[in-house]
Amino acid sequence: MLGNFTYSNPTKLYFGKEALDGLNKELPKYGKNVLLVYGGGSIKKNGIYDKVVAILKANGKNIFEDSGVMPNPTSDKLNEGCERARTAKADLILAVGGGSVCDYAKAVSVSAHCGEDPWEKYYIRFEDVDENTKIIPVGCVLTMVGTGSEMNGGSVITNHAQKLKIGHVFGDNVFPKFSVLNPEFTYTLPKYQMIAGIYDIMSHILEQYFSGEDDNTSDYVMEGLLRSLIHSAEIAVVNPTDYEARSNIMWIATWALNTFVAKGKTTDWEVHMLGQAVGAHTDATHGMTLSAVSMPYYRYILPYGLKKFARYAVNVWRVNPQGKTDEEVAHEGLNAMEAWMKKIGLVMNLTELGANEQMLDGIVKSTLVMEGGYKVLTQDEIYTILKQSL
Amino acid sequence: MLGNFTYSNPTKLYFGKEALDGLNKELPKYGKNVLLVYGGGSIKKNGIYDKVVAILKANGKNIFEDSGVMPNPTSDKLNEGCERARTAKADLILAVGGGSVCDYAKAVSVSAHCGEDPWEKYYIRFEDVDENTKIIPVGCVLTMVGTGSEMNGGSVITNHAQKLKIGHVFGDNVFPKFSVLNPEFTYTLPKYQMIAGIYDIMSHILEQYFSGEDDNTSDYVMEGLLRSLIHSAEIAVVNPTDYEARSNIMWIATWALNTFVAKGKTTDWEVHMLGQAVGAHTDATHGMTLSAVSMPYYRYILPYGLKKFARYAVNVWRVNPQGKTDEEVAHEGLNAMEAWMKKIGLVMNLTELGANEQMLDGIVKSTLVMEGGYKVLTQDEIYTILKQSL
Repeated sequence: MLGNFTYSNPTKLYFGKEALDGLNKELPKYGKNVLLVYGGGSIKKNGIYDKVVAILKANGKNIFEDSGVMPNPTSDKLNEGCERARTAKADLILAVGGGSVCDYAKAVSVSAHCGEDPWEKYYIRFEDVDENTKIIPVGCVLTMVGTGSEMNGGSVITNHAQKLKIGHVFGDNVFPKFSVLNPEFTYTLPKYQMIAGIYDIMSHILEQYFSGEDDNTSDYVMEGLLRSLIHSAEIAVVNPTDYEARSNIMWIATWALNTFVAKGKTTDWEVHMLGQAVGAHTDATHGMTLSAVSMPYYRYILPYGLKKFARYAVNVWRVNPQGKTDEEVAHEGLNAMEAWMKKIGLVMNLTELGANEQMLDGIVKSTLVMEGGYKVLTQDEIYTILKQSL
Repeated sequence: MLGNFTYSNPTKLYFGKEALDGLNKELPKYGKNVLLVYGGGSIKKNGIYDKVVAILKANGKNIFEDSGVMPNPTSDKLNEGCERARTAKADLILAVGGGSVCDYAKAVSVSAHCGEDPWEKYYIRFEDVDENTKIIPVGCVLTMVGTGSEMNGGSVITNHAQKLKIGHVFGDNVFPKFSVLNPEFTYTLPKYQMIAGIYDIMSHILEQYFSGEDDNTSDYVMEGLLRSLIHSAEIAVVNPTDYEARSNIMWIATWALNTFVAKGKTTDWEVHMLGQAVGAHTDATHGMTLSAVSMPYYRYILPYGLKKFARYAVNVWRVNPQGKTDEEVAHEGLNAMEAWMKKIGLVMNLTELGANEQMLDGIVKSTLVMEGGYKVLTQDEIYTILKQSL
C-alpha cells in the first residue's frame, strides 16, 4: 500500500429484496421537489416505476420527470436536464436505472447551478467541485449492474458533435447519498445487456489490477472479486433469475469501482479509453466495446507486466505453473480468460459493433493515453491494437 | 449475498507516511476543546505525542488530557473519562493509540452525556444510540494494528468486579469521523503486541468467514485478505520496519472489521467470546487469548462446517485436494494454519496466559454463546474446548 491516500465513501447502500423500503428512510431527509430521472421506459414495463412513484407520493414529494436518458448520455441531454432541474427547483435527483442514468444524474447534480456550459467546465477542463459548489443531492435505484456509478463520483458524458466520450470522477460530495440495490430489479434485463455489464465489472477490476509492481492487498482482494464474478456470471448466464448469482454480481460491481480496490494502486484505464473512443464513434454498448478491445490490448502489454500476468493466470484462472515459464503461464491465463469471455457470449471484435478500418484513424484520435498501466501507448500502438480488435 | 442489509461507513481514512497531515484538514471542523485520549505513555517515547500536540496547538485547540487507558479498558476508567469529557466540555475526542484507546474513546463518546451508568446501559442492556443521542465526535490516530476499531462502532469494555469483558457494536454515527493510519507509527511496537494484533486481524476474518452456507462474494474477498495477511505477516515478523508489509497489515486490519466483509454473512464470533472470557479472568493480551483457543475450537466445529473448512484449506492454505476426502483436506488446512501460527510466534495455550484448570468453570460462565457459526456450543462443549486449550 505505497503512497499516501485518503479513503472516504459516504454512500449508504440498501441491499436485498426489500431494499426499496430504504427510500422511506432517505426521502424525509430532503425537500419536497424530486427530479425523477430514468431512461427509455423499461422501468414502466417491469413495474419499478410504479413502485418508486408510490413511495415518493407516500412521502409527500412533488415529482418532476426527466426521462429518455440514453445509454450514452449526451451533453445536449445534460443541458436539457439542467434546465428541468432548475425549473423543478429540485431538492433531490432520484436516478432510477443503470449506470448511464446514475452518471447523468450526477452530471445534472453538479451542472444545474454551475452557470456555464457543463461540458466545457467538467468534461473538457476537468474542473473540480468543492464543498462550496451548489450540488443537488442524488439518490439511485439501480436496475442494471456494471458501472459502479451507484457508489462513486464517476460520470461519463458523450458529445456527438465533438465525437468525444469523457468521464469525470467527482469527489465524495457528489457520490450518491444513497443507493437502492435489489438484485431482482436486474432480472428482466436482456442477456446482451447483462453480459455487457458483467464484462464492464471485470474490466473495472482489471484496469486497477494491471498496474503497479508492489505487493498490494488490493490485488489479493481483486483476485477474490474476480473469482467470485467468474463463478457467478457462469450461473447467471444459464439462469438469469438465480438470486444468489445476481446478488453477488451486483455487490461485486459496486465494490469494483467505489474507490476501495484502487487504494495504493496507480490504475490503468486504457481499455476504457479505447472502449470509450469506439463508443463515441459507434454508440455501441459500453461493456462490449471493452470486451472487443481487451484481448489484443492485454496480449500487447503482457511483456511489460509479465510477473503480474503470470500471477493473474495462477490466482484467478488457476493455471498450473509447474514446469512453465512466466510467459507461458501468463499467456495460458489470457487464453483461459478469452475462452471464458466467448463462453458467456461477449462480443470479441469491433466489426460486430459497427466499426471498420476506415474509422480507425478517427478512433485513435479520440483515444486518451493513460500513464498508470504497464505501457504508455503511442498512437501507432493504439492503431495496431484497434486493428487487431476488428 | 442473501438477506437484506444496509452498508454505510462514514469514517474518512488518511493513510500513509504523511497521514498525520490529515489532522489539519479535520480539526477545523470541530470546536476548540479536544480531549486527548491515550494509553500508558509509549506515544511520548516515540514522539507521536509531540507531533499530535503540535498540530492541535497550531489549530488553536484547548487540550485536555485523559491518559492511562489500559489494554483492556475498564468500566471504572470509563466513568473517569466521562467526568473528564464533561469537565473539558469536549467538542472532539482524539484517540491516539491502538484498539483499546479507540474503543474507550467511543465508549466515552456515547456515555459522557448519557446521564446514567454507561456499563449498565450499553454493555449489559445493550441499548442503542440514535441520531438524537448526544455524542462527542471521535477521531483516531492509530499506533497499533489489529482491532479495526478505527473504522467501526465496536467498543469492548471490561468490568473487573463482574469479571465480564463485553463489546457493544454501535451504529455508524458513533464510528470515528476520521482515522489517521501511518504504518510507520506501528514500527516501535514490541513483537509480542505486533503478532497478537496480526492474529486478532486473522481471527476477525475467520469469525465472519466460518459462517453461512451460501455462495457469498464476501468469502472470496476474505480469502484474498487472509492470503495477503499471511504473506505480509511473515515478512513483518522478520523485518518489523518493512513498510510494505506493515502497510498491508494495517489496511487489512481496517477492512477486516469495518462491516464490509460481514455483509450477507451470519458471522460467528465464538472465538472472541471465548477469548474475551479468558481476558476477563486473566487480563491477558486480547490477540493471544484468541490464538490460544482457536485450534481446539476450529477442530471441534470442523464436522459442522466441513465443506467450508475444506474450501478454506484449498483457497487460503493452498492444500492440494486431489485424492483426498473433504475431511482430510479440511484437517490439512487447519494443520497448516497451526504451523503458521507457531512459526510467527503466537501463544498456543491458555496456561502460558496465566489460566489454569481451577479457573475454567468461571471462564465458562463468562463465555457468551453465539448462534451465527456452524455449531451453537453447550456449556460442556465450551468447557471441553477451553480444557483442550490449556
